[in-house]
Amino acid sequence: MEGKYKVIEVKQSVFALNAEKADATRALLKEKGVFLLNLMASPGAGKTTLLRETIKRLSPKYRIAVMEADIDGSCDADAMARDGVKTIQLHTCGLCHMDADMTRHGLDELGLEDVDLIILENIGNLVCPAEFDTGAVRNAMLLSVPEGEDKPLKYPLMFQVSQCVMISKTDTIPFFSYDLAKAKENIRGRNSEAVIIPLSARTGEGVEEWCRWLSDEVEAWKRMN
Amino acid sequence: MEGKYKVIEVKQSVFALNAEKADATRALLKEKGVFLLNLMASPGAGKTTLLRETIKRLSPKYRIAVMEADIDGSCDADAMARDGVKTIQLHTCGLCHMDADMTRHGLDELGLEDVDLIILENIGNLVCPAEFDTGAVRNAMLLSVPEGEDKPLKYPLMFQVSQCVMISKTDTIPFFSYDLAKAKENIRGRNSEAVIIPLSARTGEGVEEWCRWLSDEVEAWKRMN
Repeated sequence: MEGKYKVIEVKQSVFALNAEKADATRALLKEKGVFLLNLMASPGAGKTTLLRETIKRLSPKYRIAVMEADIDGSCDADAMARDGVKTIQLHTCGLCHMDADMTRHGLDELGLEDVDLIILENIGNLVCPAEFDTGAVRNAMLLSVPEGEDKPLKYPLMFQVSQCVMISKTDTIPFFSYDLAKAKENIRGRNSEAVIIPLSARTGEGVEEWCRWLSDEVEAWKRMN
Repeated sequence: MEGKYKVIEVKQSVFALNAEKADATRALLKEKGVFLLNLMASPGAGKTTLLRETIKRLSPKYRIAVMEADIDGSCDADAMARDGVKTIQLHTCGLCHMDADMTRHGLDELGLEDVDLIILENIGNLVCPAEFDTGAVRNAMLLSVPEGEDKPLKYPLMFQVSQCVMISKTDTIPFFSYDLAKAKENIRGRNSEAVIIPLSARTGEGVEEWCRWLSDEVEAWKRMN
């Protein structure tokens, strides 16, 4: 049937349009000197806990704001607001990921004038958020110890699109007889360039290293301006 | 612009078509006296481990087969095959959920002649699998203790469509200072009818109760034939 009709790759065109919008967001962020981080993970991997620790450590240095993306509920945004952090809650109304349009909507509501670093806490999901460029300058993800070492084998794209992969809840390593070397090897198999940081928000292990990585990225972004 | 053009709810029609196909699968399963269970959870909540325990306990009673759905990889299917279980691996090629068509494809490959109970291990994801009826007779899900008590607030649909909600890895309750009563209350808030079973595949707690629930459902389905 070739040549008889036009074949339209709908999914591809959706991704292309999204990528275009994401690039436009990055151009705006660059112009304003604002860094946007997209933080991703499975449900319950410790995104919110790490976020609160990160803000505590970096807020003397940067004006930080948070966008909490959830399908429903607002418990994370409530926690952020209680901490005195500039926060907005984004409801995806059932959708499993944030895309460039939704992220831009959030940024427009938040405003880019009095802020240096914005962190988007994406929907807890190892699949779909990886497919949509949000317009963030960098992607970071958490893989928690209780999830097991094999997740990079099963959810490749998430590991491929993340510049920093944190292995979280390392304080539970003895409990789960977790093989940290195997986990790192599996991550490396998907992304040889990613910075890998084992950490525990509970014991503090690795949190300083993570904050340093993030700080360095924010500074590099500012220098590009 | 009302009345000027036809508005087509694309997503709704996708769901309607999927529901129709899922009903057709259930009709076929009923005719053949085969029970299909759709098992869902976040990545790493313990689906495969529970599945292996379930098969050990129920295989004297039923002829069991497994469909392992993954985006990539085959480590779960390999484990099942090593256990001597009739298994097929379904690759969704990037897709975040199983739908009725994909499930039917798997069932056709597996064959419905020499089997009583088929368990579909869905993609590890608390969002999208809940949106698509696979044609299963029953949905069951695992919420693991390390994920936290608040997940029913954030991922409502998954809890609403599951007839059985297991709270897994209960042996980690002391470690995470987990509030089991709060978790149950949050599940109840989304689904007052669901059977809730706290369990640990490691200690064996609750596994018998889960197998009894599943057995009772299989028997009830057979009686409907």
